[in-house]
Amino acid sequence: MTRTSARRRARGGARPDRSGGAVTQSAWTQVRYRTAPTNVLSSDQIEAIHEASLTILEEIGVKVLDPEARGYLQEAGARVDHGEEMVWLDRGLVEEKLKLPPSSFTLHARNPARNVQLGDDCAIFASVGGPAFVSDLDRGRRQGTYAEMCDFIKLVQSLNILHQEGGGPFEALDLPQESRHLDLHFAQITLTDKNWQPWGLGAERARDGLEMAAISLGCSREDLIGKPVFTTVINTNSPLQIDGPMGEGLIEMAKHGQPVIITPFTLAGAMSPVTIAGALTQQNAEALSGIVLAQCVRPGTPVIYGGFTSNVDMKTGSPAFGTPEYTLAAQATGQLARRYGIPFRSSNVTASNAVDAQAAYESQMSLWGAMSGHVHLLNQGAGWLGGGLVASFEKLIIDAEMLQMMAAAQQPFEVSDAAIGLDAIREVGPCGHFFGTQHTLDRYESAFYTPLVSDWDNYENWSDRGSKDTAQRANGIWKQMLAAYEQPPIDAAIEDQLKDYMARRKQEIHGNAA
Amino acid sequence: MTRTSARRRARGGARPDRSGGAVTQSAWTQVRYRTAPTNVLSSDQIEAIHEASLTILEEIGVKVLDPEARGYLQEAGARVDHGEEMVWLDRGLVEEKLKLPPSSFTLHARNPARNVQLGDDCAIFASVGGPAFVSDLDRGRRQGTYAEMCDFIKLVQSLNILHQEGGGPFEALDLPQESRHLDLHFAQITLTDKNWQPWGLGAERARDGLEMAAISLGCSREDLIGKPVFTTVINTNSPLQIDGPMGEGLIEMAKHGQPVIITPFTLAGAMSPVTIAGALTQQNAEALSGIVLAQCVRPGTPVIYGGFTSNVDMKTGSPAFGTPEYTLAAQATGQLARRYGIPFRSSNVTASNAVDAQAAYESQMSLWGAMSGHVHLLNQGAGWLGGGLVASFEKLIIDAEMLQMMAAAQQPFEVSDAAIGLDAIREVGPCGHFFGTQHTLDRYESAFYTPLVSDWDNYENWSDRGSKDTAQRANGIWKQMLAAYEQPPIDAAIEDQLKDYMARRKQEIHGNAA
Repeated sequence: MTRTSARRRARGGARPDRSGGAVTQSAWTQVRYRTAPTNVLSSDQIEAIHEASLTILEEIGVKVLDPEARGYLQEAGARVDHGEEMVWLDRGLVEEKLKLPPSSFTLHARNPARNVQLGDDCAIFASVGGPAFVSDLDRGRRQGTYAEMCDFIKLVQSLNILHQEGGGPFEALDLPQESRHLDLHFAQITLTDKNWQPWGLGAERARDGLEMAAISLGCSREDLIGKPVFTTVINTNSPLQIDGPMGEGLIEMAKHGQPVIITPFTLAGAMSPVTIAGALTQQNAEALSGIVLAQCVRPGTPVIYGGFTSNVDMKTGSPAFGTPEYTLAAQATGQLARRYGIPFRSSNVTASNAVDAQAAYESQMSLWGAMSGHVHLLNQGAGWLGGGLVASFEKLIIDAEMLQMMAAAQQPFEVSDAAIGLDAIREVGPCGHFFGTQHTLDRYESAFYTPLVSDWDNYENWSDRGSKDTAQRANGIWKQMLAAYEQPPIDAAIEDQLKDYMARRKQEIHGNAA
Repeated sequence: MTRTSARRRARGGARPDRSGGAVTQSAWTQVRYRTAPTNVLSSDQIEAIHEASLTILEEIGVKVLDPEARGYLQEAGARVDHGEEMVWLDRGLVEEKLKLPPSSFTLHARNPARNVQLGDDCAIFASVGGPAFVSDLDRGRRQGTYAEMCDFIKLVQSLNILHQEGGGPFEALDLPQESRHLDLHFAQITLTDKNWQPWGLGAERARDGLEMAAISLGCSREDLIGKPVFTTVINTNSPLQIDGPMGEGLIEMAKHGQPVIITPFTLAGAMSPVTIAGALTQQNAEALSGIVLAQCVRPGTPVIYGGFTSNVDMKTGSPAFGTPEYTLAAQATGQLARRYGIPFRSSNVTASNAVDAQAAYESQMSLWGAMSGHVHLLNQGAGWLGGGLVASFEKLIIDAEMLQMMAAAQQPFEVSDAAIGLDAIREVGPCGHFFGTQHTLDRYESAFYTPLVSDWDNYENWSDRGSKDTAQRANGIWKQMLAAYEQPPIDAAIEDQLKDYMARRKQEIHGNAA
């Protein structure tokens, strides 16, 4: 869509579709799997990938830039060349450390009603984190401000299907870079009562996240050990490198028993081999290296196996997302994570620059890969657009609809005499209809999924209401939802402590100039 | 989208995105399943639905309006009340007839290279059939003409991912209603060399389809027995009725050994119980009644179990498509069809009135239900819009992309030492890149799925090309494809015979007035 048409659309979208009242949405709930996952690889093939990745760790090695990280690995028995910053892990060491992390854990929120289980048959959905730009139909793609970021976070709080704030939807470029994470964490804590993702880049930032989380829970940083309160994304620098800030962040989080999501960014054909099998093997080696490091820092630290294998367009070098290869890689990564008994992270991604059909079908391809692979943490679950460079307000709403549908498609339906309703079928008989039967009247209000943004009306009614497409309707919904937002209660003393902490840290970071 | 913006969009869309040359698309191929289907119900639950449906057939009965159909069933041992037009089938009769149809068969086309297998692990994809309206971005929704219908059929021929023309994309309202099916069949036969769906309404029309198919293959109508050349949709008139024209069509096709797709239209809450379990039970009873009838007419006739269970919006009564309930019903129907060893039909459906995000995500929800349920005939596979009232040129292209991706996501990827490429990983080492390695150079041209309409380019390049959304790009692609269309060769004598047959039949139908 052009900027002109974006503005034109916005006039329609600015008027909420549903006047008054709250937006209709699914209730807050834990997502659980009820059908078997899809296995795209045989056990032999999974073993072949596992074995080859162990060979990589043993023979090729991983570059680890942080000396403390190399120290932990050396102490555990790894071969280390500090001059070359290289680490080699033998099979025995890897296999031993893989036994330590839990297959499932509770993720605590400052509101205990928002605690969720992550792992085994339980999944959670997180909002988009990290894009450089924000976008909506009214103003198009642009750099974001703190106020806009707060609006986005308020929507994440309002959408019941989202279990986690995913680490800041976009950069607040009106705030100084060095202390921006403090304002983000303040917003995450005070505007939501769900769990959230801190910044994991560097030991100092990691400590700020830990301190603020501890304040929010009325405890000390040390009290967080054994009580997971957030998950931190640790990306390896593919191929085969853990850089300094990532190593520091991982160590700081693991020291405090906080779950880390080790996510290699293995784009087949660029940062990994051009084959899915090769990309998965390298992904596995990198993920295992981070998992082992976390277990060396603190045995039993919860870890999450992050799968992000996709491919580049070999003509342009652009990354592709939500492709068939992405779907297959997600399903296979689920198998690898299950082999290790470690929770699996995947994502909801698209390369599309518009909130259109491609955005939806690429998201669906990645969502089905994730769900049929039994994802435990769906990171980047809602709001991602344009290859991850953009957080979109309208895509956030549309993704929430898709996630609601994914969760509903996991709900068992009752098969009992009462549900089958032979008596109703007998009563209606051939050529009748079921609208008025008692069987229908007893059940119709909750029988079916209720949509958030989908329009099921006929063409004439839809046209009469302005022929709004999904993105235009989503524009109305997020505005309606934002207008109805209510800040979750927080203890005034805790809010003051958070403000004091921020002020002190900003003083330390910026000196008097700030 | 409004009519105004549809017209505005079309100007951009009218210029093909890719100048010159043919559209890049996947190669013609048979789709095969490589992973296990998703079972949403336990074996006990499937048996409960099966048993309850047998009780319906035994105790409640089915209304069968065609006397010949009742005669066939009576002769096979069913209890019949001709006055009430009611038929009751006992368990033994149903179980006996269910043993007869094949689990898989070859569907022949006039070009043997287009023959396809339907059943077991093989699936085929059909284009949309039957809507009242046609739509494109240039002219919006409207009643269609024969010329426009021919354009749509040419695209069905051109799109490799489509294995079957689905029965006429929309009505050609510039032709007389009584003989329109003859012109449709002429277009299906001469503009494509794939298999196609005839009209199954009434014995006379069914015979026309059979005669023209026989002519196209240079054989007689009787020669078609044992050589399936097309599939005919037989909808039951839910609840629990087979109407006259459908009964006649079914009998005529079964007499000639031609596959019939028995598809109950069980909308939960309207024509069936409000529960999925109840709707599936009634669907099963209706499907079995048609399957039994076909086996009474000619034992061993190929049949296809059609699942179309969805739900209505209980607030408006509008049918909903591509909902979580639809997905679950498709997966469960796949289980029922597998229980009987009969091929399974499902669809690619949406209620959306625009070619937008909702159209894509509802289609994906139905496609994943179908594919994970191991659909064998994906009817209405491409082009369906607006609850099935509209055949859309742009949706046709976007659906073709989605089907290509579904097929690609079923393709195994190689897991071998060569594919894993440890040597390449060793050669590149930490922090390198794989663009120039021999492992990449040997494979990059065919390593990844190539999109039809998806745009993977960055925001800047996409904006420079006019910020076209998916529907606008699809508009350019169908025009490019239509311009490049080449009619498949046909024997001139056969074409003449088809014309003679049409002329004679039109004379019979209309008399001298035509």
